[in-house]
Amino acid sequence: MTFPTPLTGVVPPVCTPLTPDRGVDVRSLVRLVDHLVEAGVDGLFVLGSSSEAAYLTDDQRRLVVETVVGHVAGRLPVLAGAIDMTTPRVLDHVRSVSAAGADAVVVTAPFYTRTHPSEISRHFRLVASGSPVPVVAYDLPASVHSKLPPGLVLELAADGVLAGLKDSSGDLASFRSVVTGAREHPGISGFSVLTGSELLVDSALALGADGAVPGLANVDPGGYVRLDRFCRAGDWERARAEQERLCVLFGMVGAGDPIRMGGSSAGLGAFKAALYLRGVIDCPVTADPQIPLSEDEVERVGKFLAGAGLL
Amino acid sequence: MTFPTPLTGVVPPVCTPLTPDRGVDVRSLVRLVDHLVEAGVDGLFVLGSSSEAAYLTDDQRRLVVETVVGHVAGRLPVLAGAIDMTTPRVLDHVRSVSAAGADAVVVTAPFYTRTHPSEISRHFRLVASGSPVPVVAYDLPASVHSKLPPGLVLELAADGVLAGLKDSSGDLASFRSVVTGAREHPGISGFSVLTGSELLVDSALALGADGAVPGLANVDPGGYVRLDRFCRAGDWERARAEQERLCVLFGMVGAGDPIRMGGSSAGLGAFKAALYLRGVIDCPVTADPQIPLSEDEVERVGKFLAGAGLL
Amino acid sequence: MTFPTPLTGVVPPVCTPLTPDRGVDVRSLVRLVDHLVEAGVDGLFVLGSSSEAAYLTDDQRRLVVETVVGHVAGRLPVLAGAIDMTTPRVLDHVRSVSAAGADAVVVTAPFYTRTHPSEISRHFRLVASGSPVPVVAYDLPASVHSKLPPGLVLELAADGVLAGLKDSSGDLASFRSVVTGAREHPGISGFSVLTGSELLVDSALALGADGAVPGLANVDPGGYVRLDRFCRAGDWERARAEQERLCVLFGMVGAGDPIRMGGSSAGLGAFKAALYLRGVIDCPVTADPQIPLSEDEVERVGKFLAGAGLL
Amino acid sequence: MTFPTPLTGVVPPVCTPLTPDRGVDVRSLVRLVDHLVEAGVDGLFVLGSSSEAAYLTDDQRRLVVETVVGHVAGRLPVLAGAIDMTTPRVLDHVRSVSAAGADAVVVTAPFYTRTHPSEISRHFRLVASGSPVPVVAYDLPASVHSKLPPGLVLELAADGVLAGLKDSSGDLASFRSVVTGAREHPGISGFSVLTGSELLVDSALALGADGAVPGLANVDPGGYVRLDRFCRAGDWERARAEQERLCVLFGMVGAGDPIRMGGSSAGLGAFKAALYLRGVIDCPVTADPQIPLSEDEVERVGKFLAGAGLL
Repeated sequence: MTFPTPLTGVVPPVCTPLTPDRGVDVRSLVRLVDHLVEAGVDGLFVLGSSSEAAYLTDDQRRLVVETVVGHVAGRLPVLAGAIDMTTPRVLDHVRSVSAAGADAVVVTAPFYTRTHPSEISRHFRLVASGSPVPVVAYDLPASVHSKLPPGLVLELAADGVLAGLKDSSGDLASFRSVVTGAREHPGISGFSVLTGSELLVDSALALGADGAVPGLANVDPGGYVRLDRFCRAGDWERARAEQERLCVLFGMVGAGDPIRMGGSSAGLGAFKAALYLRGVIDCPVTADPQIPLSEDEVERVGKFLAGAGLL
Repeated sequence: MTFPTPLTGVVPPVCTPLTPDRGVDVRSLVRLVDHLVEAGVDGLFVLGSSSEAAYLTDDQRRLVVETVVGHVAGRLPVLAGAIDMTTPRVLDHVRSVSAAGADAVVVTAPFYTRTHPSEISRHFRLVASGSPVPVVAYDLPASVHSKLPPGLVLELAADGVLAGLKDSSGDLASFRSVVTGAREHPGISGFSVLTGSELLVDSALALGADGAVPGLANVDPGGYVRLDRFCRAGDWERARAEQERLCVLFGMVGAGDPIRMGGSSAGLGAFKAALYLRGVIDCPVTADPQIPLSEDEVERVGKFLAGAGLL
Repeated sequence: MTFPTPLTGVVPPVCTPLTPDRGVDVRSLVRLVDHLVEAGVDGLFVLGSSSEAAYLTDDQRRLVVETVVGHVAGRLPVLAGAIDMTTPRVLDHVRSVSAAGADAVVVTAPFYTRTHPSEISRHFRLVASGSPVPVVAYDLPASVHSKLPPGLVLELAADGVLAGLKDSSGDLASFRSVVTGAREHPGISGFSVLTGSELLVDSALALGADGAVPGLANVDPGGYVRLDRFCRAGDWERARAEQERLCVLFGMVGAGDPIRMGGSSAGLGAFKAALYLRGVIDCPVTADPQIPLSEDEVERVGKFLAGAGLL
Repeated sequence: MTFPTPLTGVVPPVCTPLTPDRGVDVRSLVRLVDHLVEAGVDGLFVLGSSSEAAYLTDDQRRLVVETVVGHVAGRLPVLAGAIDMTTPRVLDHVRSVSAAGADAVVVTAPFYTRTHPSEISRHFRLVASGSPVPVVAYDLPASVHSKLPPGLVLELAADGVLAGLKDSSGDLASFRSVVTGAREHPGISGFSVLTGSELLVDSALALGADGAVPGLANVDPGGYVRLDRFCRAGDWERARAEQERLCVLFGMVGAGDPIRMGGSSAGLGAFKAALYLRGVIDCPVTADPQIPLSEDEVERVGKFLAGAGLL
């Protein structure tokens, strides 16, 4: 389908269910997509951080896009991450996921290399000029160790290089300057500013964001859809109550012991355990080399679900 | 050829010459290999940071390994980087480069993800158990944003997981603890501890390192071979003089304007400009999105070469 | 006066005007206090980052507190920073500023030292037990290089160690978890959660914050007082418009050339230039070793004032 | 006494013994000074990181300098740290410690503030112009979160601003460029380049350093004096053996449990426990808010001493 200008609403970054031997579990993936679509989400983002894109081989990445695009069949826009270190490698992924039917690609700044702002600018310009579909910038300093300057994002938006921004920086002040900058810039239209924060969707929409890409929406898509609708209706009180309920639910990412595992293992492990406990996916494993949650830790995830009325 | 236990001496991380349209320049690459082999180096490391591995597509990576392995034809060991974010993706590269004939693979800790020491350990164990050739750990905090703890390296060495360490951390105290730890550990033998620093090869060899992997050895392999031989002969005075000469030459990485470009662009741009000016490669371009050196900056590189008697 | 439980509203971090030879300009300081009080602010915070506390000698710090406390004469609560590296040094400042009449002290985690969360906890407990006035925690990762974990803040609040939090971390999600945590914890009452962000006061108040400590309120206290009142009245539309006007005005911190000076020089230099141009203080100099704004840069600050109708 | 140009040899950063109620233990301090002087050290550095300068009040700092200067009585040069956030505060300490008799002051880059290289340069120039004694720069990125660029150090040395460098950056390549730069610069003479690393004294002296400031020399001053003498005699083999023995001894800093305490607590706690076990000081406590070693951990420190023949 044509990529909306702008894309708005709830766009979950879709988890990638795996089989016990770490293959893509296509049947569970289809079930997860149904679970999200039926809840009323506005788009799907595959091959992002919550999808364990960094852990999937190229073959697995292709299978994920083909499966989701095929199953969605144009009902919703499907964005796909093209996550790699530098321009030439990203362009290979862009070609692959757009050939598989993605409606837009999501691209970070270069990483692993020591990157200068002028190189980040060149990177996005080169990627966009080689991409058959719109390019959304992915601001993810925790992974790429540089922050996209708001001024650069706006310049690239005005030049037609970028169709949107997915901001997972945690820096709402910087996010706001993109939101208001895009609104007031005469040369920018249809640019989509999306927050990646699970915990500040009401705040982001209140200050003018177009939508949200919350990993926790895998677990409770209905909650985020409600939250989005409350915000659009200007019902800030109910929005805040729904957001606070989701903040409590998000506590599940602390179920994994930080002495024993890193943040990816704990966070993605919790989301997958929750999807497993809710019966959406068949197996909660995460990709190597992540550390699996223990039985006790899975049980703690279950308590968060129960507390939110999701079990 | 069989991977030496331990690998010792000078093992340059081989630059990847590119054509003006950013393809691998096979003829220049072969000429560069000859330039290094004729200078007497002890091994070659392809697809590392100095090789712009982060910028090469999978097809280009394969072509580089096949070209170098084919041309070297067993005269020297060839190590190949298998640089990617996580275990499953690294294993794909391991299979590819070992099929292409690499004698060992060089592997970093996971990056882009938020990584815990226990996950780093699992990563190396899983990679080694899936690799048909020995695995050398690559400690490169500037790129992967975590430091390999010496205790972990020694544990993995003792368990037969690792065949060596390439340390580009800049932390010589940590390096020393691996060197002496490996020497004194009853369960470790044939483990190769290599420094990645251009500027401290004499210091590293004096405290017991097995060898060096200096990017600048692309430009002046003869200098590093002499330096290595002086150190092995215990002629520390001439070693220091040679090292200091090479330190001055290394100043070329400052030729690129830091206001205008990042460290990768400046460093790799200088090495390639030097190889071009010395007539080893046909074209000094670096991969996208790096910023090229200006004519003035290339001229400044030339002055460093002239000062070192290399023009 | 008694410290309010909780402190709410607008509490500007008061700039410290200096004479051309870098002494405290007491007359300008008194004028600045009047400028703030007349605009209707709810409290004053002296010796924080915007006050250049890090640059003031102990004698100057004492003079600042005495001047402001004396002039305010109990009309408003006066909080004073006790900014130093570790517990014993902080306690010396606590004694000094409370003797000078401060109604509360504001204290960061230890810095310069390599600090563990358990040491941060001990630090606040020891400071509180030695302080005759309430202690407000100051979360300022950009300066102290550690982030106060929300769970620790709530634990210290529940134990009566802390009377409030001034959060300048820029991490609104973490801030929110303190706000909601303090509201729902049965053992916490009268705890004041204040944002230090100039750009997100509406967002912070919307999610339940008690007030704000915006440096820019030195320049436009009336704007922040209006913003606070709109938020308290639930008039989110006018709040957002006022906030966006202040965001544009905040752009003045970019007037100083980042090639030539650091963020402190540019930010504090702009605030003081604005206060000078508005006729509130006699001299715009900042303390050593900060780099002063050039005439051109001061002129650019003036344009921001003019644009906001403040000249 | 007159500050040597250059200062060379072993200059221990003197620990500050405390009484159980955290006062300066003057008798133990004098005993520690005797322990160091009798071992043949070449100078003393008080109020550095190993001295817990960050934890001492101004009164305590003054008492330390007066005690050590008075007891040494000109037999050795005494350097004193003037550790504070910015120029005006550092100058207050410079006046205090030089009035108390220090022969030189040791000064870091500004910290807590967001600092630009041009501000670091101004800082050292202003401090030097206000100091009655020579100024030694203290490069300590772990504490101040910026690294002194070698070019800046050399520029300040050539301009007569700095009399030396104490480098605790852990970056031996950068250190080397100061060493060789100072040697070859026609405008620099008598400039003292000292390493702060316990583990690389032989390497640093081999590449031309003037001396070392190793915290572990509190515990085993004789070892470092021997090491220094071996290096000066060109007996690199015995130097390396002595250095390796000291590296093993340094393992004591790992006795404290990193789950329970930070690096300062563990490192300084171990040094003080060792001095206590060796009978040099009366009480092993460290300043607040550091976490004390447990009995088990102190016992582990004892095993390191026993292993080194120091018990």
